[in-house]
Amino acid sequence: MTIVTVLGAGMMGTALCYPVSDAGHQVRLVGTHLDGPWVESMKRDRVHPKLGIPLPERVTPYSIEEVASAIDGAQIVAVGVSSAGVRWAAETLGPLLRPDTPVIAVTKGLEESQPGVLRVLPDVFRDALPAHLQGSMAPAAIGGPCIAGELARRVPTAVVFTGRSEPVLRRLARELSAPYYHVRVSTDVIGVEVCAALKNAYAMAVGFGAGVHARAGLETGPVAHHNYESAIFAQACIEMTRLLQAMGGDPSHVPHLAGAGDMLVTCSGGRSSRLGKWLGSGLSFAEARAKMPGDTLESADLVRVLGRALPAMIQRGALTANSLPLMQHLIDVIVGGQRVDIPFEQFFRED
Amino acid sequence: MTIVTVLGAGMMGTALCYPVSDAGHQVRLVGTHLDGPWVESMKRDRVHPKLGIPLPERVTPYSIEEVASAIDGAQIVAVGVSSAGVRWAAETLGPLLRPDTPVIAVTKGLEESQPGVLRVLPDVFRDALPAHLQGSMAPAAIGGPCIAGELARRVPTAVVFTGRSEPVLRRLARELSAPYYHVRVSTDVIGVEVCAALKNAYAMAVGFGAGVHARAGLETGPVAHHNYESAIFAQACIEMTRLLQAMGGDPSHVPHLAGAGDMLVTCSGGRSSRLGKWLGSGLSFAEARAKMPGDTLESADLVRVLGRALPAMIQRGALTANSLPLMQHLIDVIVGGQRVDIPFEQFFRED
Repeated sequence: MTIVTVLGAGMMGTALCYPVSDAGHQVRLVGTHLDGPWVESMKRDRVHPKLGIPLPERVTPYSIEEVASAIDGAQIVAVGVSSAGVRWAAETLGPLLRPDTPVIAVTKGLEESQPGVLRVLPDVFRDALPAHLQGSMAPAAIGGPCIAGELARRVPTAVVFTGRSEPVLRRLARELSAPYYHVRVSTDVIGVEVCAALKNAYAMAVGFGAGVHARAGLETGPVAHHNYESAIFAQACIEMTRLLQAMGGDPSHVPHLAGAGDMLVTCSGGRSSRLGKWLGSGLSFAEARAKMPGDTLESADLVRVLGRALPAMIQRGALTANSLPLMQHLIDVIVGGQRVDIPFEQFFRED
Repeated sequence: MTIVTVLGAGMMGTALCYPVSDAGHQVRLVGTHLDGPWVESMKRDRVHPKLGIPLPERVTPYSIEEVASAIDGAQIVAVGVSSAGVRWAAETLGPLLRPDTPVIAVTKGLEESQPGVLRVLPDVFRDALPAHLQGSMAPAAIGGPCIAGELARRVPTAVVFTGRSEPVLRRLARELSAPYYHVRVSTDVIGVEVCAALKNAYAMAVGFGAGVHARAGLETGPVAHHNYESAIFAQACIEMTRLLQAMGGDPSHVPHLAGAGDMLVTCSGGRSSRLGKWLGSGLSFAEARAKMPGDTLESADLVRVLGRALPAMIQRGALTANSLPLMQHLIDVIVGGQRVDIPFEQFFRED
């Protein structure tokens, strides 16, 4: 039995507790400042209000004020905060972590650290740790198709753990696997994490199809705008491959769990798809944003990051100017305020 | 204006007439012996009963008895028969075709020509032509995500034309494109056609998820068995890549239109998905087959072809024994009568 502490009691952080508890470990689930009502609810009746099913047996909820005791003695720490909370998580955990405690995050995203240089969140997290931890710590992260509500319902799920230390990854995979939670490992952090970040933006684009269809006043079904969606999905795979190559990741992650697999699951619902549907129906980004008050839109955030980084990447020759026409259109829509009008003529061309 | 004759008035053959007519060409649509009632209906009121929308302006329906006059003067011939009809189509067209008439087929599938040697249908078609045509003819084929009912409704669609003559492909792409029918070309016939064939079988496997979910008595929605489906989709991409490599095709077609794109569209409905759902719900193949009387099940046919071919491919070293665990499970289910029980533990491993 291992003690696993999860920081962040949102949907995904909480869902991760299910396989870990079912694998026989003690789980301490710590809500952030934003998760207070959920922690209260779980302390009261052992149900996370957004998951709507009972917590598994070996999970104990903690409030953020109790974080020190929740970390004390933890043998593995998982981070389940949103991408905006990565630095906060590192600063919160920094004084409490032992140098040899493995850390793994479900958080996904990219940051531009210098013009045209994108960084994955495990590296952002590490650099926000206290100096004495930075050398020893190789934070891991989770990619691959995983809807939180399904994992918590024990739907068979396959993911990839990535990090720069293979022994740490193997230990995490061994300890955190469950009969319905299948874990593979990859030390190609760029490959997995760039896919994990991009898939939100590209799933939003696939979601345009539902909006175009709805706008025409048509019912969804086996004949809808699936040709349109699938063409966008294919172009997204092509652009993911090009971005991975430009950033030094292994493009074999694209036709795999982290790329196509995670993009597919993201197309089946959730905020990225909903935003895409609003945009596809003809709304501007500002109008679509207003339909989703309070929602964190990681898909739009990622498009903004790429909108800033791509010109410098093209300038230094990492990418050619016309290699990402779908992403360029997403930038025009999210940053430039244009309406969706997919430039199919620019797709499926040689780079 | 070009005269384009389409042989086969099923859903896909008929759907192809829409962009061709809209591009300004004269289209002659010839029903096979099986298409008689549809041709009669189209001659009477210009509606294909299964598409349910009016034929475009420049399409003239022909019965099979009128095939000679429909081919006479045709500048392009398209073949829209099912995979079982490819030899018949070659034998029917053979005496009527001029050696320089480009032929393009929508038919998808694989045949085992000798133990462990799989052949794509354009080659099967060519070899069934009269000898005097075989030298000059490089039949083309169409891959990529295209639901017939959507193409006929002018949903934006992107496909890839493949064949061994690039000038022929470029001419076909130029003539058959329409504002909503985006055509790219590839001379990698193996790459495109193997993807086009495999996607039916693998889409059936993705469809298991809906059956597993329904069997548990649950409603579909954003939380269902999408993690399970997406893991299977990812493993399908991996196995497509391995099969393409074994057969000499370019695996870059997998994260592209012909592979992931076409597999995705096939997952959105149709017979392969329905068969998968029945199997996933716990039925044996014989029981599932009985639920779909009269339906041609190209997905099951393809699994049978691979069930015969794989042992010889493994024996001659083209594939390793455990490189296709999902396809092996499909063979166990379709040929061996086993119930669906996805071997996730064997997935996502190095070949």
